[in-house]
This record gives sequence, structure tokens and C-alpha cells, in this order.
Amino acid sequence: MASQGKPMAWVTLATTDAYALGALVLAHSLRQAGTAHRLVVMITPGVTDTMRTQLSGAFDDVISVDVMDSGDAAHLALMSRPELGVTLTKLHCWTLTQFSKCVFLDADCLVMTNCDELFEREELSAAPDIGWPDCFNSGVFVFTPSQETFRALVQLAAETGSFDGGDQGLLNTHFSDWATRDISRHLPFVYNMTASATYTYLPAFLRFGKDVKIVHFLGSNKPWMNPQAGDASSPAGRFHAAWWDIYQSRVRRADGGHHFLEQRRRWEEGRIDFTGA
Amino acid sequence: MASQGKPMAWVTLATTDAYALGALVLAHSLRQAGTAHRLVVMITPGVTDTMRTQLSGAFDDVISVDVMDSGDAAHLALMSRPELGVTLTKLHCWTLTQFSKCVFLDADCLVMTNCDELFEREELSAAPDIGWPDCFNSGVFVFTPSQETFRALVQLAAETGSFDGGDQGLLNTHFSDWATRDISRHLPFVYNMTASATYTYLPAFLRFGKDVKIVHFLGSNKPWMNPQAGDASSPAGRFHAAWWDIYQSRVRRADGGHHFLEQRRRWEEGRIDFTGA
Ligand SMILES: O=c1ccn([C@@H]2O[C@H](COP(=O)(O)OP(=O)(O)O)[C@@H](O)[C@H]2O)c(=O)[nH]1
Ligand SMILES: O=c1ccn([C@@H]2O[C@H](COP(=O)(O)OP(=O)(O)O)[C@@H](O)[C@H]2O)c(=O)[nH]1
Ligand SMILES: [Mn+2]
Ligand SMILES: [Mn+2]
Repeated sequence: MASQGKPMAWVTLATTDAYALGALVLAHSLRQAGTAHRLVVMITPGVTDTMRTQLSGAFDDVISVDVMDSGDAAHLALMSRPELGVTLTKLHCWTLTQFSKCVFLDADCLVMTNCDELFEREELSAAPDIGWPDCFNSGVFVFTPSQETFRALVQLAAETGSFDGGDQGLLNTHFSDWATRDISRHLPFVYNMTASATYTYLPAFLRFGKDVKIVHFLGSNKPWMNPQAGDASSPAGRFHAAWWDIYQSRVRRADGGHHFLEQRRRWEEGRIDFTGA
Repeated sequence: MASQGKPMAWVTLATTDAYALGALVLAHSLRQAGTAHRLVVMITPGVTDTMRTQLSGAFDDVISVDVMDSGDAAHLALMSRPELGVTLTKLHCWTLTQFSKCVFLDADCLVMTNCDELFEREELSAAPDIGWPDCFNSGVFVFTPSQETFRALVQLAAETGSFDGGDQGLLNTHFSDWATRDISRHLPFVYNMTASATYTYLPAFLRFGKDVKIVHFLGSNKPWMNPQAGDASSPAGRFHAAWWDIYQSRVRRADGGHHFLEQRRRWEEGRIDFTGA
């Protein structure tokens, strides 16, 4: 294999400026944790030039990819998440064959501590999805870039579609032996801990949650949508606050004090500041 | 080993007449599925003589055990389930050394199809808990009776207690390598499908839920508490209706048409019918 000597990378995806904000916080959390690997963000034309510049400052590589959308409103409606068809864009990560191995992280993830040991795992390693734990959650997964796998996934998407309309259904269909084949491909839950799930089995969270390595803000309520939310004394609130700490100290500052979210609010109110001040 | 030739058994537990109703429905569901193995219920003095008689009609063995209670109000409060301290009584199942191997089922489980293949698994096999999927849910598990294991579990309970105050925390502490050691000890989720969890990842439920083998009415709202609940067109409602079907056709009839729940309602209203009519 020609893969020896190739670098390894953390990979994320942003198709909008809002998700790009998540990606920025994620990148800073990875740097803060002292990762030895490269940081890659895949973006689509929906990301503005301003944001693209900001991403270039935080990631080693900003890679433009085409939008892939399932357009599968029927399945997505089952989860009340019509916006997730676009997550098929995630499949492009398999084309990153300049890397020998990668870990994909959703843009709504936050790394709490160095997790470079994940690169010792094999494709496809992922943590269980709490909604149906024989499926893996596709917010964090170890994979090996390969044009062949990419083609197989795109063909599967075209032929049978995804049972949930998004990337997770498709990936679970392709890597369908995840639940039964090899325990080492089951990432410990602390590598993809759903921020809000901490409530459903609180004693386990209190026992094991202190070792959380990657928090995933799964669901329609993302941290960038609400600066106010989050009671720092509750577990979910603490993670929300940790996200905002990085946002305030790293992302906002890198933006020249120009608080992107503030600008966006003004823009949404129709008061765009063309001076950029 | 002297275990060759010993029978194998399904084991459940009831410390009250209400949970015993669950056990009765469970026993009928196992018979209906044509199991080849014995049915055992462990009971405590809290179960009435009338109910004990009814249990004798449905189970091969009714075995009296002592109540074991963690008395751990602090941890149980985290789950808002103060009643679960008594679930440590479940540990007695390891003393059933007249059986070579057993599958424990909570009394709030319903078997939908023959599951005798579970007896081919080794101790401790169980399905993930959806609240913290690196813990197994202790509502369905394969185990090997052993006085030694029983003693070790009781000692652990006495020395360090259970991190959730109930049996699940204790068993996960004792069998702590479940998440990482051997994939064959991970039962597919369809062997312990939480009736209410079908909502959180509905597309997966629609794809895999048709293969459900054992439904678990986990949580404080048990089917016997509410004959009315359950919209048979929703997944959770359908399971609720399946439970009530068996209750009406098997348990109520075995009770000589004396509808136990009706009697209980009258009793709770202070209108006990001493004639037993
Ligand atoms: O409009 C979108 C929706 C999703 N994503 C990407 O796809 C991932 C999966 O979507 P999301 O995290 O919203 O799904 P969830 O984890 O809530 O199921 C995101 O983290 C982003 O990386 C994106 O770039 N734009
Ligand atoms: O007061 C009780 C509580 C529990 N149980 C037994 O312990 C099991 C576990 O409790 P439960 O099913 O209520 O817990 P959950 O599955 O909701 O966490 C029950 O199914 C019964 O077999 C019992 O006999 N009496
Ligand atoms: Mn996500
Ligand atoms: Mn139960």
C-alpha cells in the first residue's frame, strides 16, 4: 500500500456559515487538546468567502466539495429534521486519499481532551447511537479514505437511498456488520457523548461522564443558536458553556473582535453593516 | 462440570402483585412462543397467596426468595425511581444452580417470538442501555447460576453499593468488561427493545423494529397501570396493546373471569369485595 508515510487527519464538514462556526470551535478544541494530526474542513459553495477565510486560519486544509443531498423528505420527516438530506455531502470524506486514515467529526462536536488514540482503530469504528444502539452514530467515526468505498457509497445512495434520509442511515447500511462483528470497532461512548443524553441515565453519566472525550450536540438545538442557554451547573449546560468559552476566546477574537454572530443577527434583521466594522 | 444434563430456564422476579401481573403476561408470551425451556418466577413475601396460586399455574417453578434492597435513596433519586432499590433481589437468580444456564427477564418484558437461541450465549450477555450504551440494560440477560458469583455480587453490593442504587449499576460494575471484551456478549437490541425508545430514532425502528423479539416496558409507566393508554397505530401503542391482549385472553381468564385489576381498583377505592365474586 502507498498509504505508508501519508499523514492522518481529523475531518469535518460545513455547508453553511452556521455549521462553519461549529467547525471553528471544533478546530480550536482539537488544537487545544494538542493533536498531532492535520485538521481538514470540507465546505460547499453555501459557505461565504469571509467564513472561508476564517476557516483557513483554523484548519490546515479547506477543501471544496459538491453538495450531495438525498432530497428524501419522507424519511427525514420521521426525525423532524428536513435539513439533514445534505449530510450525504459527508460521503466526500472518503475521497481524501491524501491521508492514510481519518477521523470524521460532525461540526457540532467539541473535543475535551486529546483523542489521537482513535487513529489506532480500523474502519469503520464508531460509537452506538442512543436512539437505536445497534446502529452507530455517524457524528464521530474512524475511516480509511478510498475512492472505491466512495463510489460504493454513492452507488448505494443512488440505488436504495438511506433509510433515514441522511448519512447515518446510509453508512449503517453499508457497514452493516458493525453491531455484530468486532468489539474493537465499537468506540466507547465517551468518544461521542450526546450532550442531552446525560439525563436519561444520570447515575451512569455521573460515574463515567467525567471521562468524556468528545461531546456531540446532536439534535436540532445547536450551541451556536443560543448564547444564553445552558445552566453551567447542569451537565448539558456545562458542555454548552465550554463551547461558548472557546467561541468567545478563540473564534470571536480571530474574527478581529468582529463577533460573527452579532453581525449575523444584524444581517438577519436587515441591518447589514457594509463597512465590515 | 456437573451442569451437563441440567435443564435451562427463563427466570423473572416479582416482589408485588402488580409486578406479578407482568410476570404472568410474560410467562404466557413465552409459552405462546413455544419455548422448550422451563419458566421460573422468584417471589418475595410481598406477593399475596392468591397471586402465588395464579403464578403456579403459569410457571413451572415459583421460588420464594428474601427481599434485598439497596436502601440507596440518594442514587435512586437521580433516576426518580425510589422503588428500584428492591431490584437487588434479582441477584438471587444466581442461586438457581439446579439450572445449567438461564435467561433473566424483567417482569415488564413481553416476548414476541421464540428466543430459545439466547441460551447459546455465554454469561454475561445483554443488550445496550439506551441511556448510556456502554452499560448493558439488566432487563434481559443470559447468565450461569453459581453460588460463587452470587456471593461476589452480594459482597460488592455490601462493600461499594450500586452506582444507580439498583441491580443494573451493580451488575455493570461486576461485569465491567461487557462493553469492550466480546461482541458475542452484546445481544442485538431487538432482544431488549425499550417500548418508548422507538420514537427517538424512528427510521431505524421502522427498518429493524419489525424483527423485535422482546419488548421491555422500561420506565415508571408500566402497561398494567393503564388499560386505556396506547394508540394501537403507534409503535409503543402496538406493544402496549399486545400486552393487554395476552392479559385479557390468558391472565384474566385463568383468574376465573375475576379480573384482578378490576378487583385491585375496587380495593384501592376501599370497596374490597370479600365474597371474591
Ligand atoms: O445544513 C447542514 C447540516 C449538517 N451539516 C453537517 O452534517 C453534520 C451532521 O448534521 P447534524 O450535526 O445537524 O446532525 P445531528 O448530529 O444533529 O443528527 C453536521 O454536524 C455538519 O458537519 C452541514 O454542514 N450543514
Ligand atoms: O417493586 C418492584 C420493582 C421491580 N421488581 C422487579 O425488578 C425488575 C426491574 O424493575 P423495573 O422493570 O421497574 O425497572 P426498569 O426496567 O423500569 O428500569 C422488574 O421488572 C421486576 O421483575 C419487582 O419485582 N418489584
Ligand atoms: Mn451532529
Ligand atoms: Mn424493566
